[in-house]
Amino acid sequence: MQSEQPREQASSPPGPAATVSYLAAVGTALPGDPVDNATLARTLGVNEEWIDVFIGTRTRHFARDLETGEVRWSLADLCARAAEQALTASGLAPHEIDFVVMGTATPDHLMPATVNHVADQLGLDQIPTYQLQSGCAGAVQALQLGHTLVTGGGHKAGLVIGGDVCSKHLDLDRDLSAAAPSDLVNYVLFGDGAGAAVITSEPRGQRLALSGVLNRFTGLGREPGQVIDWFGLADRHDDRQAIREDYKAIEESVPVMAVEILWELLEDLDWTPEQVDFLLPPQLSGRMTRRIAEELGLPDAVEVSCVADTGNNGNALPFLQLEALLQKIGVGQRALAIAVESSKWIKSGFALEKI
Amino acid sequence: MQSEQPREQASSPPGPAATVSYLAAVGTALPGDPVDNATLARTLGVNEEWIDVFIGTRTRHFARDLETGEVRWSLADLCARAAEQALTASGLAPHEIDFVVMGTATPDHLMPATVNHVADQLGLDQIPTYQLQSGCAGAVQALQLGHTLVTGGGHKAGLVIGGDVCSKHLDLDRDLSAAAPSDLVNYVLFGDGAGAAVITSEPRGQRLALSGVLNRFTGLGREPGQVIDWFGLADRHDDRQAIREDYKAIEESVPVMAVEILWELLEDLDWTPEQVDFLLPPQLSGRMTRRIAEELGLPDAVEVSCVADTGNNGNALPFLQLEALLQKIGVGQRALAIAVESSKWIKSGFALEKI
Repeated sequence: MQSEQPREQASSPPGPAATVSYLAAVGTALPGDPVDNATLARTLGVNEEWIDVFIGTRTRHFARDLETGEVRWSLADLCARAAEQALTASGLAPHEIDFVVMGTATPDHLMPATVNHVADQLGLDQIPTYQLQSGCAGAVQALQLGHTLVTGGGHKAGLVIGGDVCSKHLDLDRDLSAAAPSDLVNYVLFGDGAGAAVITSEPRGQRLALSGVLNRFTGLGREPGQVIDWFGLADRHDDRQAIREDYKAIEESVPVMAVEILWELLEDLDWTPEQVDFLLPPQLSGRMTRRIAEELGLPDAVEVSCVADTGNNGNALPFLQLEALLQKIGVGQRALAIAVESSKWIKSGFALEKI
Repeated sequence: MQSEQPREQASSPPGPAATVSYLAAVGTALPGDPVDNATLARTLGVNEEWIDVFIGTRTRHFARDLETGEVRWSLADLCARAAEQALTASGLAPHEIDFVVMGTATPDHLMPATVNHVADQLGLDQIPTYQLQSGCAGAVQALQLGHTLVTGGGHKAGLVIGGDVCSKHLDLDRDLSAAAPSDLVNYVLFGDGAGAAVITSEPRGQRLALSGVLNRFTGLGREPGQVIDWFGLADRHDDRQAIREDYKAIEESVPVMAVEILWELLEDLDWTPEQVDFLLPPQLSGRMTRRIAEELGLPDAVEVSCVADTGNNGNALPFLQLEALLQKIGVGQRALAIAVESSKWIKSGFALEKI
């Protein structure tokens, strides 16, 4: 997966103009300094070698200070920062933004929706805002909604944002020395972050044409692979697990689903595997992503992954991958992104071509 | 607002076909029996006369049993029931549903998104699902997204759902005898419920043409009028208010914003006030809604409200109003719906015509 020679320029743009939108710019925000496994071992009592071998994630970022417990940034803060970066890079003025769509599983509050605080921080007003509740597929759903709004909804430009912050569930007071691996993993796998893109109806800026966006629930009759719960005034002292994953189901199903998404995208787009210059595989953990990328079987595509260094920050991940992609992709080159949400088995993905 | 004579049949359908979608059927679900003010007085110690005079809401429904504290239905249960009703009434088979869009402020879990459990209960699979995080404007945002998906997205039919369940925040163990009115109001104002509509690209069933959907954030620089928070593992013992409203701001702003929405819709649609046969005003409480409806100033329109009997169940409200509307509206008649979300000042509304 090491070839970086530009392929032949595509003989025609990907698909009819009406079904293509463009990513003009991407921005990201990771809170604080990277937290490495040695630090987690020291501050939380987690075994460092176990993290290295079984998880394979090297660093992650937290909005909550591990030493003091103080929450330094909200989800709104991180999303606004990422969006500001994208907006500035796009060359568009705030008043040229027609809408904001945001995906997250961990909103700062249930109401107001965090996207409205983000709009406020960005100085945006009098435009539609939407916030999608979802795990990592939320970023793709947000891209899809943005895509729909500029291709079919009469809008010229909008912001698409994805982010997650685990502060409310990051219980630093807990004694982890006797914790089961299934609990420990939540402390070492996840991280915080946000990403954003400016999406436009006409090519500008980075001129990354977006097409083939796929978002599909395939969880009929299937037990959830991941659950994140929340507490209210009435049940907050309940002794129940708020975060649980079925890693067996995840390891069995996610690679298979990723391969299915790949082949469906290739067929829909009428691309051959050789035409994929860059592959953005599902970002779970350093180890799982390496495994899935191998199973996807595109040895000539350059893999663009970030999770081993950014941590698994859910809705931010595809944007972090896009930011890395933009540093490599040349005109005429193509990329495929795949995300599998194991909460209720959501298949998602999209295709890009730099024009 | 008492005239029920059908107006002259509209001389042309509302707007170009490509920007009109159709509501084929509506379904609703209210958990358990209505809970009246006398019951709240008895079980919670709230003053009955105060509820009658200051809130004006007569009954509401709760998914949590007030006597036993047991949670009898989840949000997914109520949404699936409402959607099942709409689906059956529409005459469409489950496999003809191309997507599900749902709005709520109170998801059962952060992940999986509740919409996926609803799809599962309905036997739906292999379709896109979306869940919007929002207060009462979420129902309109969901209608707007459904509208966009059938008018511009190539889909033929979908489910649009709205619901809210306050079970996790309904703390029945709390001694309310010394509680301030600002806390008590949360117990008497809100309720649980869900509603749904089948939205189609071509007219069928109830043949309610949907147009003029408005959804706009107008909260730049404005303090939230309502906040609903959630707790996680790290902060669940924190002593902070999880629900708070700025009733002064709500009483000042919501009527004004409702009138602005009304006139904007009339102008966009090129309707005169006399052409509005039915008015679906913002549903806050019995008292506030009565006041807002008067300020909207359409004496010849029939008001369609439900909140005094259903309680304020957020995203369910517009669907409950639609269900009541369908029992009255005749061919050629027109309706306008307005919802104002005071969390971060979201203006929303839509227009309907039975064809």
